[in-house]
Amino acid sequence: MDLVLAYLRARIGSDEAQPLFQQLYQLMREAILTGHWPDGTRLPPSRALSEDLKLSRTTVTAAYHQLEAEGFIQSRVGAGSWVSRSFPAEKPTGDRARSAGLSQRGRWLENERTHYLDNNFHAEAFCPAMTEVDGFAHEMWGRILSRVWRKHSHALMSYGEPAGYLPLRRAVVDYLKETRQISCQPEQVVIVNGSQQGLDLCGRVLLDAGDPVWIEDPGYLGARYALGAAGARLVPVPVDHDGLQVEAGLDRCPDPRAIFVSPSHQFPCGVTMSLRRRQRLLDVAQQTGCWILEDDYDSLFRYSSRPVSSLKSLDQHDRVIYLGSFSKLLFPSMRLGYLVLPEALVTAVHGAKLCCDRHSALMEQAALTEFIESREFIRHVKRMRELYGERRSLLRAQLEARLGGLLEVPRGDEAGLHLVGWLPPGTDDFACFRAAEAVGLEANSLTQYALGREHRPGLVLGYGGIGASAIRQGVDTLARILEELPATP
Amino acid sequence: MDLVLAYLRARIGSDEAQPLFQQLYQLMREAILTGHWPDGTRLPPSRALSEDLKLSRTTVTAAYHQLEAEGFIQSRVGAGSWVSRSFPAEKPTGDRARSAGLSQRGRWLENERTHYLDNNFHAEAFCPAMTEVDGFAHEMWGRILSRVWRKHSHALMSYGEPAGYLPLRRAVVDYLKETRQISCQPEQVVIVNGSQQGLDLCGRVLLDAGDPVWIEDPGYLGARYALGAAGARLVPVPVDHDGLQVEAGLDRCPDPRAIFVSPSHQFPCGVTMSLRRRQRLLDVAQQTGCWILEDDYDSLFRYSSRPVSSLKSLDQHDRVIYLGSFSKLLFPSMRLGYLVLPEALVTAVHGAKLCCDRHSALMEQAALTEFIESREFIRHVKRMRELYGERRSLLRAQLEARLGGLLEVPRGDEAGLHLVGWLPPGTDDFACFRAAEAVGLEANSLTQYALGREHRPGLVLGYGGIGASAIRQGVDTLARILEELPATP
Repeated sequence: MDLVLAYLRARIGSDEAQPLFQQLYQLMREAILTGHWPDGTRLPPSRALSEDLKLSRTTVTAAYHQLEAEGFIQSRVGAGSWVSRSFPAEKPTGDRARSAGLSQRGRWLENERTHYLDNNFHAEAFCPAMTEVDGFAHEMWGRILSRVWRKHSHALMSYGEPAGYLPLRRAVVDYLKETRQISCQPEQVVIVNGSQQGLDLCGRVLLDAGDPVWIEDPGYLGARYALGAAGARLVPVPVDHDGLQVEAGLDRCPDPRAIFVSPSHQFPCGVTMSLRRRQRLLDVAQQTGCWILEDDYDSLFRYSSRPVSSLKSLDQHDRVIYLGSFSKLLFPSMRLGYLVLPEALVTAVHGAKLCCDRHSALMEQAALTEFIESREFIRHVKRMRELYGERRSLLRAQLEARLGGLLEVPRGDEAGLHLVGWLPPGTDDFACFRAAEAVGLEANSLTQYALGREHRPGLVLGYGGIGASAIRQGVDTLARILEELPATP
Repeated sequence: MDLVLAYLRARIGSDEAQPLFQQLYQLMREAILTGHWPDGTRLPPSRALSEDLKLSRTTVTAAYHQLEAEGFIQSRVGAGSWVSRSFPAEKPTGDRARSAGLSQRGRWLENERTHYLDNNFHAEAFCPAMTEVDGFAHEMWGRILSRVWRKHSHALMSYGEPAGYLPLRRAVVDYLKETRQISCQPEQVVIVNGSQQGLDLCGRVLLDAGDPVWIEDPGYLGARYALGAAGARLVPVPVDHDGLQVEAGLDRCPDPRAIFVSPSHQFPCGVTMSLRRRQRLLDVAQQTGCWILEDDYDSLFRYSSRPVSSLKSLDQHDRVIYLGSFSKLLFPSMRLGYLVLPEALVTAVHGAKLCCDRHSALMEQAALTEFIESREFIRHVKRMRELYGERRSLLRAQLEARLGGLLEVPRGDEAGLHLVGWLPPGTDDFACFRAAEAVGLEANSLTQYALGREHRPGLVLGYGGIGASAIRQGVDTLARILEELPATP
């Protein structure tokens, strides 16, 4: 507790761009999220803290109120305030919560869901999760499906293996070898319902309540959700132009149980992890004995150079769990992805999959196998890569033309289905998001993906699912919004 | 500890049909599984116990060895033996286990998986989980799929709601109203990947580690697996001809957090829960504030009378979570089922589903909606009901003709896709299973589905997926096996 107070004393007032209550709120939020103030910690009374930090009492109570409104702390008249953020160490909150009949995990999932959905409204422009579904090879897919159904083998209609349909696992092995230089065996592959289920299974099998896990910050909400639900203590680690800052991670938590990264094209910042960082990360994993979860969600869509080597292909000590998905390559509602596992984890993950839903739907796995093995698959990926590359260029050109002074789009990370437009330091990117949302435009702020606040403000703009005219209109609308925003204080 | 010893002293030797070491093993197993000996409990040294119980030392060590082989206890030279069965309170087991890098939950899942698969080898005759997949309306289904694909709406290919495709939820509401007298709203329905996922979501949202849950004993392994993985303390409650013995449950654990039942056609015993028991169970739920998980997996297949009212339709106080599945109605590998939730649980379960895998595949949900709304669906269910009814009659007739003296098949529970042939008290039904397995015949023993040992021995014989000649041959083989077994001691 003393350490945190010393930290507050040292840092408060250092960011002149922000009102003091906002600074205090951010610092305390960070202390909670990084676990320096664990669940149940009693906060100092507002009067004592205002004296200690030489702040007005109003400033302190305003910060407390915001933390309370967002669920980070709880307070009761006469009893003071205490930390109540994450579920692993959460104290039962009395009769009311218990009477709803939910477990602590259930209440955590309920709260996080609201938080998650607040960040996802899926407008056409510029939703970062969408792909060009109209460009999919519908007819071919339909033909494959009806062929699979005409055959309708007994085995494909009965219960299957938890690991998934063996021919699909073999096709994944070949595909990874060819495109990602990963060499693995079908026994290490588990077919899952999209990478979200992969994350969830890993969370269950690797993490006990309170186990520390590094996550990229800003980072992918689905990972935060799945690993948080497993009871992990999430340790946010900042990201720079080389990816996850490994040394900062070691400073905050030298002995993580697992590390979540998206090195090919960090979500949402869009950077590619440097080779030096990759090596360092693998060294850390080997030394600490922790697992690396590598989310390689859109690595095939790279426009300026060849795809970067995956961590898995560099992994000499079998510490990397590789997560792949067909949602971005084909279409999101298909819900099929895969894990490539170190051998030590195979049996337990099969158990977790069996427990969760036995296995993924078999007919669809059979159809996907045929599709991957057809020439149409490579043709589809190529076609989509061209299309997304054009859309990215158009979006960048439009942003530069209309918003050159306000939004910076660095060159170099020419990949994926979204880009980040960086705002001038001190801009309230969440206010930009809200203003855009009000006119039906989706421009997620980095703040929505962040636990700490060390990132520069920015907007996440997806272009995968929208055509040229929607990109032009979207940029026009965005320009109007950003120009009308009150100037940075 | 003293209580358990007193219990051992009172009960040992009371079952003359079994060798003493087997009796001791069973009594100790029961003490562990019912939580009277929690995880980590040190067992008395074998010498002390043999003196206390007036048994030979060999008898005691034989029981210890069997418990250890099955993972109920662990021992180390010099350190004695201790309980190590379930994960919630499991003690870390030292470097070896930790070096594998699994969480406690991961190790539990790994072990249970092995146990689960030991009980499932899915031979044709008499696998209890199979349906007549060749009888499915493949052509119609193929036509519907290609129609859905021709339309391929943007919405069906993008990310969907965690609750599932709204038209399918509406169709489930209509279907439940018509067939099960359940009145609910689409907002209460969540589409899941088979009832296994429904159980898993409920486990997460309702249960904290150590929360007691009643489960039917013998009972459905999938429920045991999902609720155990959630960290629940499983309280096995015996089943008689009226279903779950509510009063026995109250004796063992008066304040469960949840109760799992399959009242329409108990799995595996095949009995239907009496109306009086249903009312009593609902009263208990209301009084204790616990949740009832009603697994209604095959209720439409009833041959001698109309389907029985579901617990959900009798539920006045919104305590019942209803689990339904299309695996038995259509085909197992489809992996689509649904939950009907009390309103208080809706948001949390949506959160859990989002966290697990975002949502189930949308195209398949759309196809299933069209299928349910077509006349073909009712026609298919009727056709299957006739077919299964005939197979059941044939199996019963064959068993009576060939095994009349050895295997009793009571009249009355004319439902579902399997029946139980009861063996004379004292028969080792697991030995029967092993002998059948050795010749490729699946005749699961009730022991495989049981945690305690209060049930009468019996064999679970499925007939859903096998034709007349396979039934005849299977009974012939079974007769040969049972006749050759050594007589009961």
